[in-house]
Amino acid sequence: MSQQVTYTVRVEFGDCDPAGIVWFPNFFRWIDAASRHFFAERGVPRWEETAQTLGVIGTPLVDTHTRFVKSASYGDTLTIAVAIPEWRDKSFLQTYRVKRGEELILECEEVRIFAAKREGGGIRAVPIPAEIRRLCE
Amino acid sequence: MSQQVTYTVRVEFGDCDPAGIVWFPNFFRWIDAASRHFFAERGVPRWEETAQTLGVIGTPLVDTHTRFVKSASYGDTLTIAVAIPEWRDKSFLQTYRVKRGEELILECEEVRIFAAKREGGGIRAVPIPAEIRRLCE
Amino acid sequence: MSQQVTYTVRVEFGDCDPAGIVWFPNFFRWIDAASRHFFAERGVPRWEETAQTLGVIGTPLVDTHTRFVKSASYGDTLTIAVAIPEWRDKSFLQTYRVKRGEELILECEEVRIFAAKREGGGIRAVPIPAEIRRLCE
Amino acid sequence: MSQQVTYTVRVEFGDCDPAGIVWFPNFFRWIDAASRHFFAERGVPRWEETAQTLGVIGTPLVDTHTRFVKSASYGDTLTIAVAIPEWRDKSFLQTYRVKRGEELILECEEVRIFAAKREGGGIRAVPIPAEIRRLCE
Repeated sequence: MSQQVTYTVRVEFGDCDPAGIVWFPNFFRWIDAASRHFFAERGVPRWEETAQTLGVIGTPLVDTHTRFVKSASYGDTLTIAVAIPEWRDKSFLQTYRVKRGEELILECEEVRIFAAKREGGGIRAVPIPAEIRRLCE
Repeated sequence: MSQQVTYTVRVEFGDCDPAGIVWFPNFFRWIDAASRHFFAERGVPRWEETAQTLGVIGTPLVDTHTRFVKSASYGDTLTIAVAIPEWRDKSFLQTYRVKRGEELILECEEVRIFAAKREGGGIRAVPIPAEIRRLCE
Repeated sequence: MSQQVTYTVRVEFGDCDPAGIVWFPNFFRWIDAASRHFFAERGVPRWEETAQTLGVIGTPLVDTHTRFVKSASYGDTLTIAVAIPEWRDKSFLQTYRVKRGEELILECEEVRIFAAKREGGGIRAVPIPAEIRRLCE
Repeated sequence: MSQQVTYTVRVEFGDCDPAGIVWFPNFFRWIDAASRHFFAERGVPRWEETAQTLGVIGTPLVDTHTRFVKSASYGDTLTIAVAIPEWRDKSFLQTYRVKRGEELILECEEVRIFAAKREGGGIRAVPIPAEIRRLCE
């Protein structure tokens, strides 16, 4: 299992809905930023650069499972602990624990791929690039 | 199982990321709109009104599992078929099939609750209101 | 002055903030969609295609002035009347009137450019492509 | 003129559009967060609290004028310098300078009001609360 990387979020007024709590798609906005932050912290270049060198345009999702434990609201500071617990041939698991201090707000487990452009539109999975995996383990 | 309700989405330029495909948190934006659309179509009043009459401020998520099958991009029209296949004591399942024509884009299954404000902040689950369940079955 | 094109928006629960009204950045989301809709209605191809044929990657803003008249909330249907009242050498005015039925919600006037990628990153304005202007007048 | 408060933003992958640059409504998301940050830094309580004490539910916009100078992309860190250069009877000016290091990205000038709920729905402007103005000058 890879070491964890932590990403920090301030919850803003506009992230909340008429019930006064975070509107849940915003959690996925932060999770996606935390995913990219993990790679950036390990030295993985911008996707424009990997598009040139490896054909990789990003790491889209194929599956995500999230369990919401507590609500959050504006003024809260959240930390997101990100890890990659498993590498497969053409996909990897990426996990997130979102906390407010010691309180668990949500847990998320994703399957992502490294994607290349497909001829004629759309994207396709490519084998995990060895140089990226080496940086991230 | 309840009957399906369909919600239609136009994918816009700004919904797409630098890879040219829908940035996934936007799918959850549409799924949440489709969830509310289901209730509106069945005659469930606005949550401000149910807050007065039933103490219910909305239907936050407790769990969501999504499987992404194909990417989408701007100019696409997506249909989201929404159903509530199961009612539990204090929660319910809500499911979504997102398609572009006949192509499956993603499938999502959620557990949601009916929530009331909790004294001192935050929210709590309340038993499914009988009048809402009756409208939705 | 060009003819108007109309774009229609349903306001969703998640578009609203804890005050229960549309959170204003969402108006700009819809305005941008209305801008693109104007071009699509006139037969202007997707920007990926114009990137190949004309070097044009989109129509970024250089100036926007918006006057908010009334608030809106979820359940509202808004219409956005879009026009291009003026073409300049390297920019154009695009205007928006957002209404709910007969009520004016907001008015917006933008200056946009047609942009190409700049060597070394960023973007630059290009002269208005004649074939696009012809489609839009 | 009030002193400035600075708000810092990391631009994320998902904030960018298919042209690879920040999709402009996201700038308004950050500007709104910077607006609230200004009040929070001066000790203005959460709007739920001012709703109880002063009837004030927030500071909606009535006018915004923005001039975009340079584009930004993910990986950039932006600073937003916020000030309130003018107080009027029932509105105030709030200004923003967004920079990346020394480079100006955009300038924005807004007119905002302090709003209360209106009987029967919607909002209305109230006179600037003296205690809030005192904190902010």
